[in-house]
Amino acid sequence: MGTITLEQSRANVNLSSRTTFWKSLKYQLKEAFFPDDPFRQMSDHPPAPLRRTWSFLSYFFPVLAWAPKYKPTLFASDLLAGITIASLAIPQGISYAKLANVPPIIGLYSSFVPPLVYAVFGSSNNLAVGPVAAASLLLASSIRGKVSPEEQPELYLHTVFTAAFFTGLLQLIFGIFRLGILVDFLSRSTITGFMGGTATIIILQQFKGLLGLQHFTNKTDIVTVLHAVLANRREWKWQSAVLSLGFLVILLLARRLKEKVPRLFWVNAISPLLVVVMGGVIAFAVDGKDHGIPIVGDLKKGLNPISISQLQLKSPYISVALKAGLISGFIALAEGIAVGRSLALLKNEQTDGNKEMIAFGIMNIAGSFTSCYLTTGPFSKSAVNYHAGCKTPMSNVVMAVCIMLVLLWLTPLFKYTPLVALAAIIVVAMLGLIELHEMKHLFKVDKFDFCVCMAAFFGVVFVNMEVGLLLSVGLSIIRALLHVARPTTCKLGKVTGTELYRDLEHYPDSTTIPGVLILQLGSPIYFANANYLRERITRWVEAEGNICKEKGQDLQYIVFDMGGVAAIDNTGIGMLLEVHRMLGKKEIQVALTNPRLRVVEKLVAANFIDVLGKEWVFLSISDAVSGCRFALRQADNQDELQV
Amino acid sequence: MGTITLEQSRANVNLSSRTTFWKSLKYQLKEAFFPDDPFRQMSDHPPAPLRRTWSFLSYFFPVLAWAPKYKPTLFASDLLAGITIASLAIPQGISYAKLANVPPIIGLYSSFVPPLVYAVFGSSNNLAVGPVAAASLLLASSIRGKVSPEEQPELYLHTVFTAAFFTGLLQLIFGIFRLGILVDFLSRSTITGFMGGTATIIILQQFKGLLGLQHFTNKTDIVTVLHAVLANRREWKWQSAVLSLGFLVILLLARRLKEKVPRLFWVNAISPLLVVVMGGVIAFAVDGKDHGIPIVGDLKKGLNPISISQLQLKSPYISVALKAGLISGFIALAEGIAVGRSLALLKNEQTDGNKEMIAFGIMNIAGSFTSCYLTTGPFSKSAVNYHAGCKTPMSNVVMAVCIMLVLLWLTPLFKYTPLVALAAIIVVAMLGLIELHEMKHLFKVDKFDFCVCMAAFFGVVFVNMEVGLLLSVGLSIIRALLHVARPTTCKLGKVTGTELYRDLEHYPDSTTIPGVLILQLGSPIYFANANYLRERITRWVEAEGNICKEKGQDLQYIVFDMGGVAAIDNTGIGMLLEVHRMLGKKEIQVALTNPRLRVVEKLVAANFIDVLGKEWVFLSISDAVSGCRFALRQADNQDELQV
Repeated sequence: MGTITLEQSRANVNLSSRTTFWKSLKYQLKEAFFPDDPFRQMSDHPPAPLRRTWSFLSYFFPVLAWAPKYKPTLFASDLLAGITIASLAIPQGISYAKLANVPPIIGLYSSFVPPLVYAVFGSSNNLAVGPVAAASLLLASSIRGKVSPEEQPELYLHTVFTAAFFTGLLQLIFGIFRLGILVDFLSRSTITGFMGGTATIIILQQFKGLLGLQHFTNKTDIVTVLHAVLANRREWKWQSAVLSLGFLVILLLARRLKEKVPRLFWVNAISPLLVVVMGGVIAFAVDGKDHGIPIVGDLKKGLNPISISQLQLKSPYISVALKAGLISGFIALAEGIAVGRSLALLKNEQTDGNKEMIAFGIMNIAGSFTSCYLTTGPFSKSAVNYHAGCKTPMSNVVMAVCIMLVLLWLTPLFKYTPLVALAAIIVVAMLGLIELHEMKHLFKVDKFDFCVCMAAFFGVVFVNMEVGLLLSVGLSIIRALLHVARPTTCKLGKVTGTELYRDLEHYPDSTTIPGVLILQLGSPIYFANANYLRERITRWVEAEGNICKEKGQDLQYIVFDMGGVAAIDNTGIGMLLEVHRMLGKKEIQVALTNPRLRVVEKLVAANFIDVLGKEWVFLSISDAVSGCRFALRQADNQDELQV
Repeated sequence: MGTITLEQSRANVNLSSRTTFWKSLKYQLKEAFFPDDPFRQMSDHPPAPLRRTWSFLSYFFPVLAWAPKYKPTLFASDLLAGITIASLAIPQGISYAKLANVPPIIGLYSSFVPPLVYAVFGSSNNLAVGPVAAASLLLASSIRGKVSPEEQPELYLHTVFTAAFFTGLLQLIFGIFRLGILVDFLSRSTITGFMGGTATIIILQQFKGLLGLQHFTNKTDIVTVLHAVLANRREWKWQSAVLSLGFLVILLLARRLKEKVPRLFWVNAISPLLVVVMGGVIAFAVDGKDHGIPIVGDLKKGLNPISISQLQLKSPYISVALKAGLISGFIALAEGIAVGRSLALLKNEQTDGNKEMIAFGIMNIAGSFTSCYLTTGPFSKSAVNYHAGCKTPMSNVVMAVCIMLVLLWLTPLFKYTPLVALAAIIVVAMLGLIELHEMKHLFKVDKFDFCVCMAAFFGVVFVNMEVGLLLSVGLSIIRALLHVARPTTCKLGKVTGTELYRDLEHYPDSTTIPGVLILQLGSPIYFANANYLRERITRWVEAEGNICKEKGQDLQYIVFDMGGVAAIDNTGIGMLLEVHRMLGKKEIQVALTNPRLRVVEKLVAANFIDVLGKEWVFLSISDAVSGCRFALRQADNQDELQV
């Protein structure tokens, strides 16, 4: 073929760029662990040491960023929001504590200390901190296999505190080592399916409270629970059922009102407290306990007792707590970060996932020392906080103060809260988490995403929460690896009237160039897909060869569009070398177009460019095609001369 | 901003393409499991049923493809190659059987039945079948933890047969279900490191034979082995050591000769047999057993006994055999396929990985029924086969016939083979597997690949083979996931003198367009990288905003080059929507260029195109820039009019 001068090409591929190993390692580590470049604000400042220190401190204590600028007008908003979420925190705290099988008072404790800690370390202005349903249930189902909450209530409670401690530790470590990347592997589809499934099984659990059952199952799957409900039909209490219906209607009406008249969101926000108060009055009036309306019972007055000495750091309970803490902590983290992010987005603010993890971690560790169990930023409460017009984390402080007042003086009032009211509150809260609309959307847009979502949903509903989550994440990762292992390749043609080369399948009117096959290689070429790409290229070449033969021509050139190849590794380069050799034997010349920076560097280092010949690397496909045409013409001329 | 008519753009993005779910699922399954489209030959034929059936049968019995065309000239080549590899098969069979702790005769049995089976089912013309060093050692180290070859030799042997059975089953299942994709995850770097490490520990094991030691260790790691060699210094036998040295020199000289004069490769090929014969003569002459030269001992005459009734299909041994069979089978598979492929490549032939797996599977199952242990296509023997000029799998038949003759009449001759000769043969064979050159190349081209390689190497050398392999594959997969989770993005500029937009870092002379930021998004946008991309885009926008501000301008347009985005999922689309909303609040207009077919379909289905506006989707970056400029000018005109 000889050397060819290509006057057509107007610019050449830059083959001389080099990045040192350390520079590229530094860049990669930075992108992997500091994608948000958290200290970029600092480097903008002129080097004023004091200001720099302050800026550094306020990175770790976000309170320093907002507190000095705090104004009375802001406080007015935060006060209103804080009181609103406090009214929600009391019934939710008691309900979710029941869900986790811990005494109701623990739910109130958990709405006091953690919000205060979060106000200091948290960076989200919208998050309202407190216990959360899914993680509560998960915690209970992980621990109750080893420690029975009925037979060893003290030990169970201490194990729950220990789990909260490990949750905090995990979250802190995640945050410090910037492992936010792990949470990225929970896709939106997984979360939708998992939340929907969890909400479903939590609703199923509420049949116990709604119907006033005495006996129930410890399992969470739908088959066992429905069986337990039906098997214990004799225990169904009409009093509980009637009250349930009434409360459900009130709560659903309040929700409907909010949807119709968004201004009246506060009616919906205080409706749970309203139901608790109404229920308490009714239960007190009819002496409910004796008439088929079980009540919460005595609640101790006073603030959180210290629980640091109760942590179970000895086997065999440490492993139970560790496992429960890790799993439920991971879920709580995902929920908290997702909620914080979506609310921040509405206000066009930024949240820093890794910083939030540190805040959650410190908050849970502090909580585990003061009789709190696992807390995070639950969706329902945070949404109410947002709609109530919160401006800063101060709303969490207001809520904590309200809860403190309740703990100090008002707990006896909640003694008569009927369990059925709590069950109704949970059911309505959970209904909001089953996003049928989103699932329909998934089905329409992406069937595989829909499968991922359904795997989580049915896994949770029919087996248990861990299985659902693992199934769904497993499917997502297999899909990610399949994307890596089976990248798309396509044949390009020239779009009529332009110099652009595009996918022939997508633009069927495009024209091909006789004797030249142009292939677009999809993203990273490396060990996981190198074999596949070789097979696929071989097939393309064979098919094109047949097409050419029909037209009485030979396939002479193959152009690889490398523009979409973000990276290449040693196995990938080996594959390209093999393909080059294989095609060389068939007298087909290989040309590359538009390789990216990192790819060029590797190809040069591995001598591939030398083997191929610099003159066969082009900046654009149309340059490459001109080059091939020029070479073709030259060859024809030589043939004619020889004739 | 209003609607804008863009006369500049010459062609539009095709937004109307739709692929049905089933069509796309079929396509994806085909690419995942039939990347080589094995039946494509058949569909080329005109529909002649008989020929079609024949073609179908010869897919499953490749022998039908070559046997009818077999010619005497081919046989001449195969005969020579077959005899050459048989001369290698005898000493290798005996040595590797020692490595697997099974009686030496099993190594000969394993070179008789499996090659015959492979000749019928195998599709590679170059592979020579037999036992292999790495898998033999792995098998021994997996089983000996549960069954001691010294104390329960019979049970141990039966477990080895059972492991071979499971290996065969695994390989057959892999082949039938077309799981060749799993082998793709063993990268070239992993294999280089793993082979190098295994060769190193196998060489270390040979100190026992080379020095004539009585006591040795069962562990394989370098620390324990060297300690055992030094601790037993008193047992070193000078006779063995002298013979070792002599044999090593002969073997190394033969290898050197082959390198210098490739024509004389056969000297190297028969040198192991030569060493065995010389060693046997010496040992017989000096009555070696009594003079510090341990010998192989009696070998039973006769062909393979049937071993089907000896398979241990009952617990507790079935689980040992299963585990050993799966791990060593996976390794053997990877080696066999890699060897077959690289040799085929030299002859410009094709091999079908999945078909090879089926052949290996049937061969190992048949082997386990006839007193053979795990076999595959070892590198050394296959390379000799190739150099000796083999043409078809018939060379395996010739080898098997030679071994049969040996088994029937000549086994007594090998009784006096000194162990030191076998050790020397193994050492020299293993030296060829430590590819220092390739490791150096890896270090130069890709430091991460080098780490993957070294993880396998040091893992194997310092811990054990499983750890080395898992470490290395784990690292590779983490890297693959990191590629997915942290795709590269870059800012593009116009290359001077062209209409092309390329990476500014790569082409620093390119010019940017004031007020317009052009970003190239790397490969698939989905759950694993959606969060990251949002952060990264935010950073790009912030940085560009600052640059614009310095010039007294506003950033008004952002163009996403989607040409490299091969796929998008629901989470990815959600991210784009969020980015669009976020930038909308900053009054920055988003434009997309050149989305691919699959991406367009999803974006349309998810209504993203409607939200963005069709007029902001362009076929090329220069169209998009023209569009933005046009809109800018219009806005300026309006401003002037208003002024």
